[in-house]
Amino acid sequence: MIRVYLAGPDVFRPDAEAFGARLKAICAGHGLDGVFPLDGLAGGDDPAWAGLPLAQVIARRNEAHIAGCAALIANLTPFRGPSADAGTVFEIGYARALGRPVFGWSNAALPFAARSRAFTSGGERDGEGMLIEDFGDLTDNLMIDGAIIASGGAVFTAAAEAAARWSSLEAFERCCKAVARSAQLLA
Amino acid sequence: MIRVYLAGPDVFRPDAEAFGARLKAICAGHGLDGVFPLDGLAGGDDPAWAGLPLAQVIARRNEAHIAGCAALIANLTPFRGPSADAGTVFEIGYARALGRPVFGWSNAALPFAARSRAFTSGGERDGEGMLIEDFGDLTDNLMIDGAIIASGGAVFTAAAEAAARWSSLEAFERCCKAVARSAQLLA
Repeated sequence: MIRVYLAGPDVFRPDAEAFGARLKAICAGHGLDGVFPLDGLAGGDDPAWAGLPLAQVIARRNEAHIAGCAALIANLTPFRGPSADAGTVFEIGYARALGRPVFGWSNAALPFAARSRAFTSGGERDGEGMLIEDFGDLTDNLMIDGAIIASGGAVFTAAAEAAARWSSLEAFERCCKAVARSAQLLA
Repeated sequence: MIRVYLAGPDVFRPDAEAFGARLKAICAGHGLDGVFPLDGLAGGDDPAWAGLPLAQVIARRNEAHIAGCAALIANLTPFRGPSADAGTVFEIGYARALGRPVFGWSNAALPFAARSRAFTSGGERDGEGMLIEDFGDLTDNLMIDGAIIASGGAVFTAAAEAAARWSSLEAFERCCKAVARSAQLLA
C-alpha cells in the first residue's frame, strides 16, 4: 500500500489516537497506508536521539515519517488564526522539498483572504499595516497552495458546521480518493 | 558572501522593499548576502512558469531562492495568532528538508505555550478541546524549534514593545552575527 503521512492538528485532540485510527481506516479503504504523527517509527527511534528532549525527538521522528512516506495529506482547517496549524505547515514545506506530492483538506470553505479579513477586521491591511494577502480563492498563504499545486496535489474543502470543524471527515475522504487516483505521482 | 534567505511576513509591510534593503544592509555588515523574498531570481524566472497565476510564480520563485541559499533566517514574530506567519513556516520546513541550517528571530519573548494560552484563554486545552502544546520555552510549534536546533541553528528573541514588533531589528542583528559565526555549517 502507498504510505501517506497524515499531517494535522488532530494530534491535539483529546481522542487523538482513536481519531488517527479513524483516519487510517478511511485511508485503508482507498488503498492507502496512513501514518499518523503519533505512530512509532517502523525501525524505532534513531539511537543518536537518545538523551534529546522529547520535543526534539518528536520533531525528528515526524521528519523521518515524512521521508518514509510517498505523499502527505494535510488537515488545513484553520487553527488559532486564519492559517493552518504551524506544525502542519512546516511538514508541508518539508514534504514539498523532498519532492513528495502534497494534498490538503479543510473544513473551512471560506478562502484565506476572507478569513484573514475577518480575523483582523481589516480591509486591504490589518491594524499593524500588514497586507492581507489576497489571491482570490487560495486556501491559505500562497506558499502552501502553490506547493500543493506544483507538487501535483490538490485541496478539498467542506463547509462544516462550527461544531463539526474537527470531526467532519467528508473532505478528508474526497482527498484520499484523489490521492489513490494519483498513483502515477507516487511511484 | 554567504547567501541567506530572509523569510518573514516583512513582505506584507507597506515599506516592504525599503525594509528588505535594511535587512540586507545588516546582513552585509556581517558578511552575509541577504536574499529578500521580493527579489527577482538571478537567472530570471523559469520559462516553464510562463502563464501560471502570479501566486504560483511567487511560490516557485521563493522555493528557488531557498534552494539557492546556504541558510535561512526566519522572522518568527507571531503573525495573526500565536504562531509565525504560515508562509515563513512553510519555508522553514522547505529549507530544513534541503539540509540548510535554519535560524530564527522574534520580537516576542513570551514562549509559544504562554502565547497560545493567552490567545485561547485556555489552560491545558482550548475552547475546542485541542491541547495547548507546552514544551516550556519553545518559540513556536515543536516542529519549528526542533528543526532549527537539529539543523545547527538557534532562535534569538527580543521583548520588543508592541509598537516596535515589526520594526525592531536588535534580535535580527544578533541572529545575523550567529549565522556569520556558523560558517562551518554553511560550507
